[in-house]
Amino acid sequence: MAQNSNKKQVEQITDMEVDFAQWYTDVCKKAELIDYSSIKGMFIYRPYGYAIWENIQHALDQKFKETGHENVYLPMLIPESLLQKEKDHVEGFAPECAWVTMGGSEKLEERYCIRPTSETLFCEHYKNVIHSHRDLPKLYNQWCSVLRWEKTSRPFLRHREFLWQEGHTMHATAEEAREETMRMLNVYADFLENVLAMPVVRGRKTDKEKFNGAEETYTVECMMHDRKALQSGTSHYFGDGFARAFDITFTGKDNQLHHPHQTSWGVSTRMIGGIIMTHGDNSGLVLPPRIAPIQAMVIPVAMHKPGVLDAAAALLERLKAAGVRAQMDDSDQSMGWKAAQYEMKGVPLRVEIGPKDMEKNQCCICRRDSGEKVFVSLDELETRVQELLDSVHNGLYERAKKNLEDHTKVCHTLDEVKQFMDTEGGFAKTMWCGELDCELKMKEQAGVTSRCMPLKQDKVGDVCVCCGKPAKHMIYWGVAY
Amino acid sequence: MAQNSNKKQVEQITDMEVDFAQWYTDVCKKAELIDYSSIKGMFIYRPYGYAIWENIQHALDQKFKETGHENVYLPMLIPESLLQKEKDHVEGFAPECAWVTMGGSEKLEERYCIRPTSETLFCEHYKNVIHSHRDLPKLYNQWCSVLRWEKTSRPFLRHREFLWQEGHTMHATAEEAREETMRMLNVYADFLENVLAMPVVRGRKTDKEKFNGAEETYTVECMMHDRKALQSGTSHYFGDGFARAFDITFTGKDNQLHHPHQTSWGVSTRMIGGIIMTHGDNSGLVLPPRIAPIQAMVIPVAMHKPGVLDAAAALLERLKAAGVRAQMDDSDQSMGWKAAQYEMKGVPLRVEIGPKDMEKNQCCICRRDSGEKVFVSLDELETRVQELLDSVHNGLYERAKKNLEDHTKVCHTLDEVKQFMDTEGGFAKTMWCGELDCELKMKEQAGVTSRCMPLKQDKVGDVCVCCGKPAKHMIYWGVAY
Ligand SMILES: [Zn+2]
Ligand SMILES: [Zn+2]
Repeated sequence: MAQNSNKKQVEQITDMEVDFAQWYTDVCKKAELIDYSSIKGMFIYRPYGYAIWENIQHALDQKFKETGHENVYLPMLIPESLLQKEKDHVEGFAPECAWVTMGGSEKLEERYCIRPTSETLFCEHYKNVIHSHRDLPKLYNQWCSVLRWEKTSRPFLRHREFLWQEGHTMHATAEEAREETMRMLNVYADFLENVLAMPVVRGRKTDKEKFNGAEETYTVECMMHDRKALQSGTSHYFGDGFARAFDITFTGKDNQLHHPHQTSWGVSTRMIGGIIMTHGDNSGLVLPPRIAPIQAMVIPVAMHKPGVLDAAAALLERLKAAGVRAQMDDSDQSMGWKAAQYEMKGVPLRVEIGPKDMEKNQCCICRRDSGEKVFVSLDELETRVQELLDSVHNGLYERAKKNLEDHTKVCHTLDEVKQFMDTEGGFAKTMWCGELDCELKMKEQAGVTSRCMPLKQDKVGDVCVCCGKPAKHMIYWGVAY
Repeated sequence: MAQNSNKKQVEQITDMEVDFAQWYTDVCKKAELIDYSSIKGMFIYRPYGYAIWENIQHALDQKFKETGHENVYLPMLIPESLLQKEKDHVEGFAPECAWVTMGGSEKLEERYCIRPTSETLFCEHYKNVIHSHRDLPKLYNQWCSVLRWEKTSRPFLRHREFLWQEGHTMHATAEEAREETMRMLNVYADFLENVLAMPVVRGRKTDKEKFNGAEETYTVECMMHDRKALQSGTSHYFGDGFARAFDITFTGKDNQLHHPHQTSWGVSTRMIGGIIMTHGDNSGLVLPPRIAPIQAMVIPVAMHKPGVLDAAAALLERLKAAGVRAQMDDSDQSMGWKAAQYEMKGVPLRVEIGPKDMEKNQCCICRRDSGEKVFVSLDELETRVQELLDSVHNGLYERAKKNLEDHTKVCHTLDEVKQFMDTEGGFAKTMWCGELDCELKMKEQAGVTSRCMPLKQDKVGDVCVCCGKPAKHMIYWGVAY
C-alpha cells in the first residue's frame, strides 16, 4: 500500500535521465515552488519557494551586516536620461528594458525604465551624499526585484522579473574597492558552499563576459547535475568610471577633489534553480538543511493507537525548542503518500514514531539524501537530529563536489574540448591566449563559453587551446544556463 | 561649548509650532531618513529610514506567521485586461496607474500596469490553486513596493512608489473571512500601540471611504501631534465579489461548487510618517524603543582620560549581549554635537560614561523622550536599561494618548464641529444618519472627512449632527493626511 502510493506520487515527475529540462520544470511545479502568471516569464513565488528565498535572505543579510553593509531602498524607475549616462551600461541594458510611458491618463515627458539593475540610481544618490573622505566608504545593499525583458524564460533561471540583492559600494581608493570586490565574492562562495552545499569555482570573467560598465567581473561558478554551469553570484569592480560619468567627487585628506571607486555585487533567486539542479533526484527536490523551510517532518505511525499522537507532538515540541524547523503531518493521508510528499518537497529528515518505537524509547529517522533509516534513542534526540542535519549537508556537498571534480577535464586542443563536450560534458580546463577571437571560435566550434579564469591558477600547458600561441591564463569552458 | 554646538545643530530644523509641515520635512532630511530622487514623488529610503522599516517588518512578519500566514511574491505587472475584471476596483485604481507599453524596442500588444495593489493578481493565482475545501483557507501575505501615480507627494505619507505588505486571504465561509478581517485589524492595532506607542481608534469606514471593490473596510486611525488624522492600517472584507468576477470556485464538503470569501489588509511605510508626527519634537525625531535601529548610544566622556574608552567599550558589549541595539560614538566630535546628533536621530537612550562615573561605578543615562538624566549603577546596567526602554515606550504612549483624548470632542451640531475644527482641531465625535449627503456636506462646510465609525460605539445623542434626522452610528470626523 505504502509502496503503491509512493510510486504513484513519484510517477508524476519525469526522470532526469530521460529529460533533464522536463524533470526540472516538474520539480518546480510539483514541489509547489512556483506558478505561472498570465505574463510570459513572470512567475509566482509560492509559499514553499518563497520560504527558501527568505532563509537565503536571512543568512546572507546577516553576513552583509557583519561586513559593515547597510540596507537601503531606491526607486524602481530609472529616467531614460539617467540610464544613458554611462555608455557601456546603457548599451548592455537598453534592449532588455521595460518602459513606462504613461502615468494615469497622461503621456510622460520622458520615459522611465523599470530597473534592470540600479547602478545609475545609486550613483545619482551617491552624488548627493558623498562630499568628503569622511563620507566614505559607503557600503549599501538593496533587496528588491528587477526586470529584464528577455525572450525566453525558465523558472528561477531566467525570469523577466526576479528577486535579488544588489550591493553598491563607494570607496576612497581603488585598493579598498578591489578588496571589497573580493570580500563579497568570498562571502558568496562561503555561503554557497557552507549553507547551500554547492561547491564553487571562484574566478574572473573574460572581458567579453564581464558586466556592462565594469572594469572587472568576478564570479562563482557551479556545476549542475547535468554538468552545465550556473553562474551563481558576481562581484564587479568599476574603478571610477561611473563616478566620472556621474560627476561624483569627494574632498580627500589632501584637500583635493577625487573620484571615488565603486563596486557592485549580486545574487538572485536563480540560486534556487541551482539548489534544485545540484541536489535534486528522481523523487523530487533535495534541500540543503541550512535553508530548508522544513528541516524535519514528524510523522506519527499508526496514529489511532493510544499515545502515538501525544508522543509525536512531544517529539515535535522538543525539536522546535532545539531550534529545528520542524512540522508534523498528522493528516489522514497514507504513510506512503506522506513519504512521497516530503521526498518531493526535499525535506532533509523524516522522523517517524509509532507504538513499537515508543516501547523502545526511539524514533526512526529517514534521510532524504541517501534514503538511509536510522533509529535514534529519544534520550539523545536533539543532538542526533543536529548531527544528522549536518551529515546531510556534508553528504550533499561531497556528492556535488565529486560531480564537479569528476567532470572537470584538462584539454589541450579544441578537438579535445569538442570531444569532451560531445561525449561527457562538464568544465573543460585549458590554457588561453586571452584573445577574443579564440573565445568566439570556442563558442562557434565547441559550443562552449568561457566560465571564468579561476583565482587559483595552475598551469596545464604553455599554449592557447585554440590558436596555439603562448598562453596567458588557465580558464574553464562550459555550457551555461 | 556643548551648549553652543547643541544649539547650532538644533537651529537647522524649523519649530513645529512655526510650520508643522516644514518641521516634518526637516526631520525627514536631517535625521537622514529619506532623500529625493530625480522622479517627483519617488523617494530614497536611506539606511536609517530603511532600518526602521526592517524592524517594523520583522515584528509584523512574526505576528503574521504566528497567525498562520505564509509569504509569497507575485509579479509587479498587471495586464490591463486582468485589472479590469472587477469593475469598482479598476475604476478606483486606473487613474493612478503607471503603464508599461514597451518591452525592449517592441510595443507590447497589451499594456501592463505596475501594481497599485495586487487583488487581481492574487485572484488569478487563487483560481489555479483553490479547488477543494481542503485547499482553504489560503492565508497569504506579500512584502513589496507598489506604485500610484499621484500628483502630490510627501516623504513617507504620499509616495508614488512605497513599501508595504498586503495580506490576501481566501476562506470557505463569509464568517471565517469576517473573523480574519477583524483578526488582522487587531494585529495592526496591537502593533501600533504596543510596538510603535501609537494609540489607535479602531473602526469601520463609511461606504464613501472604503476600499475600491470591498464590501467593508476597517481602519486604525491615529491622531498626529498637529491633531490631524493618519489612517495607519486597513483591513478589508470582500465577500465573494472578486471570486465571482474571477470565477474562483471550490468543491465544498457538501460536494457542491462554492465561491470562497476573501479579505485583504495592509500597512505601509506611511507608518514611519506616523511615528515622526506622533512622537517627534523640536529637537528632531523621537523613536519608540521597540523599533529604534539604535536603542542606546554609548558616549565616552573625556575620552583621552585613561580607561574611559575601555570602560565605554565594556559597557557597549554588555548592552549588546543583553540584546539591546546599542552603538558607541567615540569619534572626535564634541559632546554637544553628539548630544544634538542623537537627539535629532531620536535614539531613546544616551548612555554617558566618564572618569567620575567610573569612580562611582555608574553611568549617566539621558532619556530622549523627557530629557531626564538618571545615574545607573553598573551593577544593574542591563535591568535598568531595559526598564528605561520600557519606560520611554510607556511615556510616549501616554503622551500620545493624552493628545488623542484631549482633542477628541463630542459635537452635536455642524456649527459646533466647524467651531472645533477652526479653533482647536482634532476628532469631532458625533452621531450620523448614515447618508452620503450628510458626509459630503460635512466635508464642504466643516472641511472634515469621516475617519471611522468606532467599533466601540457609544451613544452621544439621538440625531445626525448634520441633518437632525434619527442617527444610526457614532462617528469620528477629522482632517486627514
Ligand atoms: Zn588563442
Ligand atoms: Zn444626516
